[in-house]
Amino acid sequence: MSFAPRPTPPYYAVIFTSQRTGVDEGYGAMAERMVTLAQQQPGYLGAESARGEDGLGITVSYWQSLEAIAAWRRETEHAAARDEGRARWYSHYELRVAKVERAYGWDAAQDAPGDPQPR
Amino acid sequence: MSFAPRPTPPYYAVIFTSQRTGVDEGYGAMAERMVTLAQQQPGYLGAESARGEDGLGITVSYWQSLEAIAAWRRETEHAAARDEGRARWYSHYELRVAKVERAYGWDAAQDAPGDPQPR
Repeated sequence: MSFAPRPTPPYYAVIFTSQRTGVDEGYGAMAERMVTLAQQQPGYLGAESARGEDGLGITVSYWQSLEAIAAWRRETEHAAARDEGRARWYSHYELRVAKVERAYGWDAAQDAPGDPQPR
Repeated sequence: MSFAPRPTPPYYAVIFTSQRTGVDEGYGAMAERMVTLAQQQPGYLGAESARGEDGLGITVSYWQSLEAIAAWRRETEHAAARDEGRARWYSHYELRVAKVERAYGWDAAQDAPGDPQPR
């Protein structure tokens, strides 16, 4: 996984910060499956994910609307994965739903002096 | 770094996703210094950060208002660190400013069946 696309705001971000337990059983397969499933959801715009060696990870998924997020929350396999997550894979998590108001990016290959400007 | 506090929404999130170059020189010291500096800024609410072995990282910082974010952006040492970051430490980044509308958390030690409810 790498950078998500950069659609024109407004759109929504779901910020999921989690601490993993030491239990790996089935975790990788579930995580991959959730990416595949999310990509098939209406209103899915992309996601970015990172986890450090200490087991703390952040996944941010991007969505067109709150309705799209609510539908993803109701998705049956996703709900089952959340239950499994609480039973096995995570010791703690925080979830935040946020409306993206401004976004910009920068790439070394297209560098220009000074800070990039929001669009 | 671990989980940020969970103030009552609304508040703001700055989602900074970055790809590191192989250059480490000064990076760790800068990153620590930026955390210390940010903590001294008015309106700073906390931050969460993770970076994987592939060098892709996500830092989400939380702020009381857009004004607090703008002031942090103007902070002199922070601006200099951004210049250094573009010159040395990052090959690509994406930055998104988002308004947190809902937030909730879950902890294994206080588990209750079913999904936690937003507040």
